[in-house]
Amino acid sequence: MHAFRTHTCADLTSKNVGDTVRLSGWVHRIRDHGGVLFIDLRDHYGITQVLCDPDSPVFAEVEKVRSEWCIRIDGNVKARDESLINPKLPTGEIEVFIRDIEVLGSAEELPLIVFGDQEYPEETRLRYRYLDLRREAMQRNMTLRSDVVSSIRKRMWDSGFREFQTPIITASSPEGARDFLVPSRLHPGKFYALPQAPQQFKQLIMVSGFDKYFQIAPCFRDEDPRADRSPTDFYQLDMEMSFVTQQDVFDTIQPVMQGVFEEFGGGRKVDTDWPQISFRDSALWYGTDKPDLRNPIKMQIVSEHFRGSGFAIFAKLLEQDGTEIRAIPAPGGGSRKFCDRMNAFAQKEGLPGMGYIFWRDQGDGMEAAGPLAKNIGPERTEAIRQQLGLGVGDAAFFLGGKPSAFETVAGKARVVIGEELGLTDKERFAFAWIVDFPLYEADEETGAIDFSHNPFSMPQGGMDALDGDPLEVLGYQYDLACNGYELVSGAIRNHKPEIMFKAFELAGYGEDEVRKRFGGMVNAFRFGAPPHGGCAAGIDRMVMLLADTANIREVIMFPMNQRAEDLMMNAPSDPSSDQLMELRLRVIPEES
Amino acid sequence: MHAFRTHTCADLTSKNVGDTVRLSGWVHRIRDHGGVLFIDLRDHYGITQVLCDPDSPVFAEVEKVRSEWCIRIDGNVKARDESLINPKLPTGEIEVFIRDIEVLGSAEELPLIVFGDQEYPEETRLRYRYLDLRREAMQRNMTLRSDVVSSIRKRMWDSGFREFQTPIITASSPEGARDFLVPSRLHPGKFYALPQAPQQFKQLIMVSGFDKYFQIAPCFRDEDPRADRSPTDFYQLDMEMSFVTQQDVFDTIQPVMQGVFEEFGGGRKVDTDWPQISFRDSALWYGTDKPDLRNPIKMQIVSEHFRGSGFAIFAKLLEQDGTEIRAIPAPGGGSRKFCDRMNAFAQKEGLPGMGYIFWRDQGDGMEAAGPLAKNIGPERTEAIRQQLGLGVGDAAFFLGGKPSAFETVAGKARVVIGEELGLTDKERFAFAWIVDFPLYEADEETGAIDFSHNPFSMPQGGMDALDGDPLEVLGYQYDLACNGYELVSGAIRNHKPEIMFKAFELAGYGEDEVRKRFGGMVNAFRFGAPPHGGCAAGIDRMVMLLADTANIREVIMFPMNQRAEDLMMNAPSDPSSDQLMELRLRVIPEES
Repeated sequence: MHAFRTHTCADLTSKNVGDTVRLSGWVHRIRDHGGVLFIDLRDHYGITQVLCDPDSPVFAEVEKVRSEWCIRIDGNVKARDESLINPKLPTGEIEVFIRDIEVLGSAEELPLIVFGDQEYPEETRLRYRYLDLRREAMQRNMTLRSDVVSSIRKRMWDSGFREFQTPIITASSPEGARDFLVPSRLHPGKFYALPQAPQQFKQLIMVSGFDKYFQIAPCFRDEDPRADRSPTDFYQLDMEMSFVTQQDVFDTIQPVMQGVFEEFGGGRKVDTDWPQISFRDSALWYGTDKPDLRNPIKMQIVSEHFRGSGFAIFAKLLEQDGTEIRAIPAPGGGSRKFCDRMNAFAQKEGLPGMGYIFWRDQGDGMEAAGPLAKNIGPERTEAIRQQLGLGVGDAAFFLGGKPSAFETVAGKARVVIGEELGLTDKERFAFAWIVDFPLYEADEETGAIDFSHNPFSMPQGGMDALDGDPLEVLGYQYDLACNGYELVSGAIRNHKPEIMFKAFELAGYGEDEVRKRFGGMVNAFRFGAPPHGGCAAGIDRMVMLLADTANIREVIMFPMNQRAEDLMMNAPSDPSSDQLMELRLRVIPEES
Repeated sequence: MHAFRTHTCADLTSKNVGDTVRLSGWVHRIRDHGGVLFIDLRDHYGITQVLCDPDSPVFAEVEKVRSEWCIRIDGNVKARDESLINPKLPTGEIEVFIRDIEVLGSAEELPLIVFGDQEYPEETRLRYRYLDLRREAMQRNMTLRSDVVSSIRKRMWDSGFREFQTPIITASSPEGARDFLVPSRLHPGKFYALPQAPQQFKQLIMVSGFDKYFQIAPCFRDEDPRADRSPTDFYQLDMEMSFVTQQDVFDTIQPVMQGVFEEFGGGRKVDTDWPQISFRDSALWYGTDKPDLRNPIKMQIVSEHFRGSGFAIFAKLLEQDGTEIRAIPAPGGGSRKFCDRMNAFAQKEGLPGMGYIFWRDQGDGMEAAGPLAKNIGPERTEAIRQQLGLGVGDAAFFLGGKPSAFETVAGKARVVIGEELGLTDKERFAFAWIVDFPLYEADEETGAIDFSHNPFSMPQGGMDALDGDPLEVLGYQYDLACNGYELVSGAIRNHKPEIMFKAFELAGYGEDEVRKRFGGMVNAFRFGAPPHGGCAAGIDRMVMLLADTANIREVIMFPMNQRAEDLMMNAPSDPSSDQLMELRLRVIPEES
């Protein structure tokens, strides 16, 4: 007989009745029923009920056992009474009568109960992560994560991609966040950096003549912690292809992502039609570049209806350059109570408020209610209603000014309205490619031009496009939005050194600066670089969506806490003076 | 038509004759045959011959093209003349007449020629790695590596394992090498460490109730560079299982490793019988704990034949405690010339020399030749011959003293003898499990007891074994040797806190020290730890063996040089003063 088990705790059925078996696992629950001890014995695979009556030669031993002790038992499989069969348990037809027991690992008093759903402060859960992870939900989340990553890998292999590992201890690759640095012992005073993403390396892989690369890549950004972000390392599905257009990348990655969501979505609907929405339309319609398309609300510009109208605030606003009035239609939101609540929401978000109109049945016909309707009169009100396609029982909210001032709140209001009115289908994954990102943006205060997203993207129109107004230049750059999250981000890269230098020049970076910061890549482009592009998908975020959690620590085995500490392993910690000496480093005391 | 290609450079055959196609790739070679330009166009998949005659509308453009330019061509597929068909090339039946060309990426003068096998200094190859990687051998090595890793993953999944990612920015986990440190910005003065291996985390995963874990895990050791070692990061197949014995681990990992070697061994024989050899036998027979079993030579103790013999040096040696005489049989080595060369080899390795006997045919029978045979006389000589099973044409070499003083050289001599006599079958992978490692060793000078290998291994015999002589304690610890390399290392872990504290105590570490260094794991063991064990296999080394190279940089995409520098990316480099300030660090100038 095997030293620890003949079966797992999920294996035994009525077919095994009469067998002598050996099981190992953890004591999930113990019950004493009239002197007979019932133990739910748990392992990774399942639970088996084992029991011990006072006739057993090891009754005294079994009596000592407590929750979460790890034990090995030998026993006889017996059929349960018909009335005691548990159809929810794969092993529910049988129970095992204990004849021998060995304590493999006893447990002290538990700081966290594994059985049941009791909630614990996150610090407790992280400090005793090995107990937290024994809980059913965490076993499920970690299994899900592992299976999602495996599925992604299989799908990428099946699409002709090969996985290559890129360096982790490497050079700084500025991607907008802070680098983690690693002091060099062999070259004291010099530092390596951990890659924020394998961006430069994957582009170098393309220049090296490999056609299709992917990697489940660890990425490192020293960012201030947030609920949906790991403060240290996180994982991306990173991919890159040569000789492709933007549409090729979409056609490659959609089946992978869609397949994974269909496989692990737990029956939730997965959209197969992934619209391509320009960055500008997305901002206009949804107030964000990561719209939640489960919510059908689409904002519209309604400036013309307010220009010169009796609603002086908007009429006056529109006299300024760059202003507009935007409407958020709210089908089913046609009550004063709801409208006032949304108005209050906007005020809480720092706006003066949201004007509204709602339409109600007045017996003799439809009536447009709300102060705004009164101010602009029935004709304009009706024109707005027709433009927005609303009717009795519906409402519309209005925001005015420069879009940059109200767009974010408008986007949030759209989300809240969708949620409160039950318009957002929670059992669905809705995707959209956001395309045509502007390559540059102007600083609101100084007017200085800088890259708005990724400086490595190819401008649409190539070199010629860079001769006009930088703010009009669009990049071959794209995001995939899913349910309000940015899930994927990518671009067709700028692989021509002359276009790259020009693009950087417009953002105020000289050739020397570019060579200094991205020398490895820029040098490589001088030796026959192929056109290439790709994207990166956030693994942690995908699993969060699939696991239906908003906390990234629910889908990471051993996460840091929000202060970037590992309480279980005691990290970060004080270095030894020998270590600092070897690195020729000195820590500056806080006072200095 | 697609913007870049209708086919890859490996696709076109006689079936495509008459088609108009578009290809993209690199200019591998250009030849001018009487005014007609022949270009071998290369991509990741293959090579296609494209050509341009002066009638082509783009002849002048094509004339400008140089080696390693990345180009896109349109053209017509034509059948080659029967006599010009190249059967070695999948596209050897056709050629493509260029009608249009676009330069996708031109190239400056090349510091490294991609075509052909010209050798370059390693610094050049690493600085221009993207060119080096375009060469056929490197494309093959990288593809091999990627395919090996994929195959390992599939085999582990199929064996019921799940892959889990463990933290990379974490706590120091002393494994015998130096840690790479990462200064914390949020906690200035404190440092994270990069894991030397996920040892503690994989054990914690077992304590967390997961049954079978693996990971293709990046590992980080700040070690001084060596040809077969990466000075920064390297990869391991890391695996761990609960409720297993040592034999279970062997039975799990052998099919995975054997399968990979069979799949990628290129027809070389892969042994299916993997003997288990104790650490002590391995030292005795092979002079090393990573024997190359392709070499059939097995050393033997022959002390008794020399005790009190006329060979005074050995006879005297044997009067000291702990000494012995060991023989290296050398079948086929029976010539004075060979024996003298081996004797010289031993002297070069720092020994006084190796005595030898060789047997030759003297017409009237066999003669034992060499000074040693004369000294000990015919009877002893014959007894030695019989023990070693040698005959005419064979030789034997002899080393004497304390094994620790000569064993390493003996092992090397065995390798050289096997090589020189052609006994070592180069077309074969031979594996052996080395088992029963002693848990402790005594310092040669001080006599102090310390762990000889992994301090986390379970002592054979458990707690009781720790009551006797520490130097007699064996661990459930094992290595897999393949062709003279250590390919895998593992152990059944010590999961019982009381045995662990006792084991550390014998090596001079108090409870406090253990808690301080391995607190995360030791704490976890207090809450129902299961018995568990596993191993780690070196990915880079496996690929090296399969690719038949002794240089690890041939199987890593972007390796560091031997001074742990990345010349392409310029790492390590000087940090900015802002970065140092944020981390509250100061670099101590060299003078201080």
